Amino acid sequence: MDLWWTEQQTPDRRLSVRVTNVLHRERSAYQEVAVYETVEYGRLLALDDIVMTTERDEFVYHEMLVHVPLSHHRGPRRVLVVGGGDGGSVREVLRHPGVESVVLAELDPVVVETCRRFLPATAADLDDPRVELAFGDGIAYVAGHEAEFDAVLVDAPDPVGPAAGLFGAEFYRNAARALRPGGVFSAQTESPFLNASLIARVQTGLRAAFPIVRLYWAVVPTYPGGMWSFTFASLDERPPGAEPQRVVSGTRWWSPEVQRAAFVLPPFMADLAAGRP
Amino acid sequence: MDLWWTEQQTPDRRLSVRVTNVLHRERSAYQEVAVYETVEYGRLLALDDIVMTTERDEFVYHEMLVHVPLSHHRGPRRVLVVGGGDGGSVREVLRHPGVESVVLAELDPVVVETCRRFLPATAADLDDPRVELAFGDGIAYVAGHEAEFDAVLVDAPDPVGPAAGLFGAEFYRNAARALRPGGVFSAQTESPFLNASLIARVQTGLRAAFPIVRLYWAVVPTYPGGMWSFTFASLDERPPGAEPQRVVSGTRWWSPEVQRAAFVLPPFMADLAAGRP
Repeated sequence: MDLWWTEQQTPDRRLSVRVTNVLHRERSAYQEVAVYETVEYGRLLALDDIVMTTERDEFVYHEMLVHVPLSHHRGPRRVLVVGGGDGGSVREVLRHPGVESVVLAELDPVVVETCRRFLPATAADLDDPRVELAFGDGIAYVAGHEAEFDAVLVDAPDPVGPAAGLFGAEFYRNAARALRPGGVFSAQTESPFLNASLIARVQTGLRAAFPIVRLYWAVVPTYPGGMWSFTFASLDERPPGAEPQRVVSGTRWWSPEVQRAAFVLPPFMADLAAGRP
Repeated sequence: MDLWWTEQQTPDRRLSVRVTNVLHRERSAYQEVAVYETVEYGRLLALDDIVMTTERDEFVYHEMLVHVPLSHHRGPRRVLVVGGGDGGSVREVLRHPGVESVVLAELDPVVVETCRRFLPATAADLDDPRVELAFGDGIAYVAGHEAEFDAVLVDAPDPVGPAAGLFGAEFYRNAARALRPGGVFSAQTESPFLNASLIARVQTGLRAAFPIVRLYWAVVPTYPGGMWSFTFASLDERPPGAEPQRVVSGTRWWSPEVQRAAFVLPPFMADLAAGRP
């Protein structure tokens, strides 16, 4: 069977992966939710024909979105994940032993149900008693909470449609206000090769809200170009990339050494990090 | 015009890029040599329909193949590049001021002629008087030279066909013998996500020939999965990743800090680095 699924990653670049089975396709109130069985990446979750996560490489994204800010915090107890309906970020948050509660503010309940059913290793901990599912608009959720969280982690799709506001200055101000003293923030912030102006704009927006803002990166092979950026921000003025407050064991991408290295930017990224596109 | 060029990157993964012009297609004695004008990556050189280099991201590959070993060497004067007919590695070698000669052992003169014509920024320094073009089999060239070079840099295509021998234990023994005392070696060694067993085998082969062997990595967005590995080896027992002997300015990926960070491996690569696939 010569069956391929293709993502139009940019107007000028496409990724195709060989598929052995279409496990699920459903139009939710917000988007088309699909799960494909692929040969190279295991099961692949696509929203509106964009890769969200795959079994094979999700570990990179979720470990780096979560452990970089949480291992920097002195003792995170209450964590908010915005987006991230696949549950991978929640799973990583719960590996930090002091965490008492995780709120998952996900727009689309169909994403959560689909991942529970088809991506059980990713969604593994969504039924943990410490997890609260808050379905609805994450932007409104963040705006409605003040000094409640030790970490806000933005596990957002690309900045189009309803997710665009998750990359805006107003959201960042509200995220800073939703944090308790010493609170940390992280967000996925797209490709340094393909989304330079967005990355620069995000840095500027976050700097208006947080005293410490730092770009870092990793590689997710099914994302456009592979190289992927994240942005760390903190109310605490200790610089990130120093010794983590705690080590999470059993990780496959993150380590204390990788955390330090992830903040080392190739010179071509220096302008982006400074907010210059 | 909706024109796309597609690389079958693995049996189960394809990359397609939008093309505005087919600048050149020629069947040489060894392979099909083609240059496409792409929207996202500038001009793209393909050999037998596999990306070799693009104007947009070649800087990562060439800087990391060359500056990691050369900046570790105390004073490289004679350098051998095996493969690398596009000239990008030669260009980077010549940024090290003490270099007196660079031999380019490239199999296919058509690649060199094509790059001179269509990729002038990459092939820029092939006419430098310090450069000697040695067309022919790079494996035989290396086997025929003893204690002549301060660095052997293997800018090889994928390990299929005539290039397979460039990833073998016998070639590595000959490369070590072709080096003078204190000599360094580097090679591109494929994707950590997609070529794990090859990477493990390369480490084992190199360890039989060199006292110091270390895996490092970078990201080339047009290569499969983005993340790309290189292997450093040295006759000199100083570990790499320490302070470089000299700084090359004007680089866009390499820096002394990036050089150190490039040797920090995510835990999932630890087995590969130890020669266990």
